[in-house]
Amino acid sequence: MFARDHVSHALGIVLQEIRPGYAKLTMRVTQAMLNGHGTLHGGMSFTLADTAFAYACNAYNQNAVALGCDIIYPAAGREGDDLTAEAKECLLAGRTGVYDVAVSNQDGVVLALFRGQSRRIEGQIVPPEAV
Amino acid sequence: MFARDHVSHALGIVLQEIRPGYAKLTMRVTQAMLNGHGTLHGGMSFTLADTAFAYACNAYNQNAVALGCDIIYPAAGREGDDLTAEAKECLLAGRTGVYDVAVSNQDGVVLALFRGQSRRIEGQIVPPEAV
Amino acid sequence: MFARDHVSHALGIVLQEIRPGYAKLTMRVTQAMLNGHGTLHGGMSFTLADTAFAYACNAYNQNAVALGCDIIYPAAGREGDDLTAEAKECLLAGRTGVYDVAVSNQDGVVLALFRGQSRRIEGQIVPPEAV
Amino acid sequence: MFARDHVSHALGIVLQEIRPGYAKLTMRVTQAMLNGHGTLHGGMSFTLADTAFAYACNAYNQNAVALGCDIIYPAAGREGDDLTAEAKECLLAGRTGVYDVAVSNQDGVVLALFRGQSRRIEGQIVPPEAV
Repeated sequence: MFARDHVSHALGIVLQEIRPGYAKLTMRVTQAMLNGHGTLHGGMSFTLADTAFAYACNAYNQNAVALGCDIIYPAAGREGDDLTAEAKECLLAGRTGVYDVAVSNQDGVVLALFRGQSRRIEGQIVPPEAV
Repeated sequence: MFARDHVSHALGIVLQEIRPGYAKLTMRVTQAMLNGHGTLHGGMSFTLADTAFAYACNAYNQNAVALGCDIIYPAAGREGDDLTAEAKECLLAGRTGVYDVAVSNQDGVVLALFRGQSRRIEGQIVPPEAV
Repeated sequence: MFARDHVSHALGIVLQEIRPGYAKLTMRVTQAMLNGHGTLHGGMSFTLADTAFAYACNAYNQNAVALGCDIIYPAAGREGDDLTAEAKECLLAGRTGVYDVAVSNQDGVVLALFRGQSRRIEGQIVPPEAV
Repeated sequence: MFARDHVSHALGIVLQEIRPGYAKLTMRVTQAMLNGHGTLHGGMSFTLADTAFAYACNAYNQNAVALGCDIIYPAAGREGDDLTAEAKECLLAGRTGVYDVAVSNQDGVVLALFRGQSRRIEGQIVPPEAV
């Protein structure tokens, strides 16, 4: 699944650790990830968090799709920051899963708190639908 | 602000229309925007929506930062889709703004519904903080 | 369904208008709805909004359950305020529905913006699960 | 603050434990808390969670107001259920706080997952604005 993930490769996302319900990814903030204000684009920290969420909830080798997500930005990211996203399963009840992801920089400052809700669908990881 | 937005340029986002409280952007889904499932990465539709939100709330030429956002994915996007994101101001009360963004494909199918909350900060558009 | 809704009756919620995908309710803020700060408890404006959401998405006479909701509070409510909640369908795609609800006071000031996501389930309005 | 909280008293909410950044509350589901489907009204579980959030973030004796909240309902509550809401501080950065609340029944089944964002304002606990 990671091999086919074009977005992760383009952003230089590195998969550090993965197991059912858990994933840890890293990404360095490059100039290409900045917004019009010169700080990290919210879409980039979201993408990192969302990717961690996807790996954590698909690590069971059963297809899961994202129903919705929310994100809060307590602090701004800067060029050169080394980000770590850690996704943890908060709940798995029937076909519904809830995952929390925290994105921190090299100093441990939290830049984003993400929560995603997933739903298991038919099939294994050659999946018809997207996380 | 658009000139300095590296992410928008990298993704081929085109600014179609902008006025205070409103922005309309388009983006074509390329292979580089797909996830491990072969469909549009949630982070990419979020980035498009988030960019539309940023333009709509910064179009007053007063700095605004994003406090948080949420997104719901009613349908999956495919390679080659021509996406349109339309951001509308839902509320502006004091320093708080709420913006709704819908991301649709070429057939008018809604792929994402996004809501963002912004807060105006000091300064004009040479801003210290990020949306 | 309204006849059996104990919460609505206890809070004095009045159903003003209902049709598929739409509902309008009113409620007066009493002392019993205040929090420890002496202003309207967030749970009470949420309950009003959530009730409007439930009526709008169940007005098709097909069972729908709430998957999740979010709420933003732009302003505080006061004792004696006459609140109106208006729920509008934002999207209905397959079994998924998204509804936006605005709660305003007698002066048209928006106190809460609510968004709810529903999912249709089997059966008609003698439903096993809750909105 | 609890003494003046009319909503908590009306719902029979009991404050079990409180310290800065943490609160634990209990509530029994009565018939008056049911919705038109005969299950626990989403507004009632939200109110319990929101109250736990308010106590956790105001336990510093500095006024804090809620900016927004979201809630996910993994399971339905029933009449007679004994609910426990546990609020934990997820982040406190400058004036922004993020709190997670889980609402469970007597069997440990999670009925609601709530996340609230707060902002500290001027003054101590004789506060002008509401959580």
